[in-house]
Amino acid sequence: MQWLVTGGAGFIGSHVVDRLVERGDDVRVLDDLSSGRREFLSHHLDAGRVDLRIVDLTDYEATLPHFEGIDRVIHLAANPDIRLGTRVTDTDLRHGTIATYNVLEAMRQHGVNDIAFASSSVVYGEGAPLPTPETHGPCVPISLYGASKSAGEGLIGAYVGTFGFRAWIFRFANIIGGRGTHGVIFDFIHKLIATPERLEVLGDGRQEKSYMLVEDCADAMLHVMDHSDEPVTLINLGTEDTCSVRRIGEIVIEVMGLSARMDYTGGDRGWAGDIPKARLAIDRLLNTGFSLTCHSEEAVRTTATLLFEEIAGSRVGTQD
Amino acid sequence: MQWLVTGGAGFIGSHVVDRLVERGDDVRVLDDLSSGRREFLSHHLDAGRVDLRIVDLTDYEATLPHFEGIDRVIHLAANPDIRLGTRVTDTDLRHGTIATYNVLEAMRQHGVNDIAFASSSVVYGEGAPLPTPETHGPCVPISLYGASKSAGEGLIGAYVGTFGFRAWIFRFANIIGGRGTHGVIFDFIHKLIATPERLEVLGDGRQEKSYMLVEDCADAMLHVMDHSDEPVTLINLGTEDTCSVRRIGEIVIEVMGLSARMDYTGGDRGWAGDIPKARLAIDRLLNTGFSLTCHSEEAVRTTATLLFEEIAGSRVGTQD
Repeated sequence: MQWLVTGGAGFIGSHVVDRLVERGDDVRVLDDLSSGRREFLSHHLDAGRVDLRIVDLTDYEATLPHFEGIDRVIHLAANPDIRLGTRVTDTDLRHGTIATYNVLEAMRQHGVNDIAFASSSVVYGEGAPLPTPETHGPCVPISLYGASKSAGEGLIGAYVGTFGFRAWIFRFANIIGGRGTHGVIFDFIHKLIATPERLEVLGDGRQEKSYMLVEDCADAMLHVMDHSDEPVTLINLGTEDTCSVRRIGEIVIEVMGLSARMDYTGGDRGWAGDIPKARLAIDRLLNTGFSLTCHSEEAVRTTATLLFEEIAGSRVGTQD
Repeated sequence: MQWLVTGGAGFIGSHVVDRLVERGDDVRVLDDLSSGRREFLSHHLDAGRVDLRIVDLTDYEATLPHFEGIDRVIHLAANPDIRLGTRVTDTDLRHGTIATYNVLEAMRQHGVNDIAFASSSVVYGEGAPLPTPETHGPCVPISLYGASKSAGEGLIGAYVGTFGFRAWIFRFANIIGGRGTHGVIFDFIHKLIATPERLEVLGDGRQEKSYMLVEDCADAMLHVMDHSDEPVTLINLGTEDTCSVRRIGEIVIEVMGLSARMDYTGGDRGWAGDIPKARLAIDRLLNTGFSLTCHSEEAVRTTATLLFEEIAGSRVGTQD
């Protein structure tokens, strides 16, 4: 099978590509390398197993030709930084909504009908019951990132309903793991390298979300695609428990072998548009027969260890 | 109060403007006159009560200056033709999603925080329970028009959650009445003028939706805005009953004084992306104390009478 993975050089994308290559499938990656990195795929590139193409998905004409000969698309490309929307309001519109439209339209022009899409738990907005089932409504996201994910879901639904596409829409919890390029653990490690005696925590530290290891996320996506073929399969991907930001701080400090004190900026959330409490109902996922390898706190610890190695390693490299 | 109504020269918009002028408020209208018409506002323009500005909302720079001095925005501008998306896939993206972003961003730049938005029952997609409550999820629209309305809701939620906006999101049933420029009654009248002995009906005629008179719709919007001030008020606007396409055909034929036979193209829907059965739960609306003046069949009959007069009148005018 010939796959196309947008954002395939990124954090989640490169793990999905790992799995597809392991399966023996052919993989074409479209990535603008704005947050993805060539080295995340270097093991496959050296082996000639992945065809990486540097493409700006906001440019339809540039995007179109790369969909020739594709069987299935996994569309992960997006701005990964939810907070950015508080300062720059058109990034998620362009790199989320419009890029998703361009992907769908390029698929239609080339007769490619199958798409998996990385949506997010943030489409549920604030005040949803916890754990949040897929049937929750109305979904009113409170961030521009969430708005672009919601818009992507709608566009995909339209191409299914109007042009006979088939889609798998995944609403991701916080996905963490090696090769992470953003997020709370990544930020904490950078802050602690800069000031090892003190960790500034946005909000009151009581924000509590569920965290899923990126390998579990990649496996779950492919598992669900193998086990359902409805016109639209919409499914939460997450873990059943949560981890607080305070606890994440403690784990990162411990993994780094420090004894920093934690200072809180206060308030119930990290920034305007942040959702302080998030936990997804994952019955649908478990009912497909999928099993998680680890839960939130374990995922946080594994990630802290991997990212600290990666970040410390790259800093040594930089200073050479 | 200084209102700004986008799409205010259009079918629904011009009725909303009527009500605002009746209240004695100041009204600025932005419209590109693509489906709106200057004559729908001519009574107010002649009286100097409405400031009509011809603006393309897909052009942010052109849009921005018109939001100066505005207290509240009612954003109705959109492509009104749901079927268009089956042929042209970027119209709803540009004139729906991107235009809505431009409106929100222009509001933010001018410190305007209050927005009412015309969303649609089609955001619910197919297979929703009938009547459909606002809490239904997941919402997966099946038309590009629906996708753009869903995207608009999300963008508005993001501006509420991130920048402190306040919003009223209205999910409209089929809104019908005088000055209609599209839709099944409009189409039937045009078809019957062309071939008075025969009416071609898209689908099997059993499509069944609820229809709301445009004056009720305009009154309901302003009523809800007067009676709620949550950060986001999301509410269905419709009637409690439905009318089938077959029955609409009978009513239009009767109103036009004809005895045409009805021929059905077959299938359960008019076109790909059409939703054959739609009825909204309107408990939230009724709980605000709002009363409808008429139900679906009455709204259809009133509309058929008004549109037949308007269309026949304009044809006589054209042939002079």
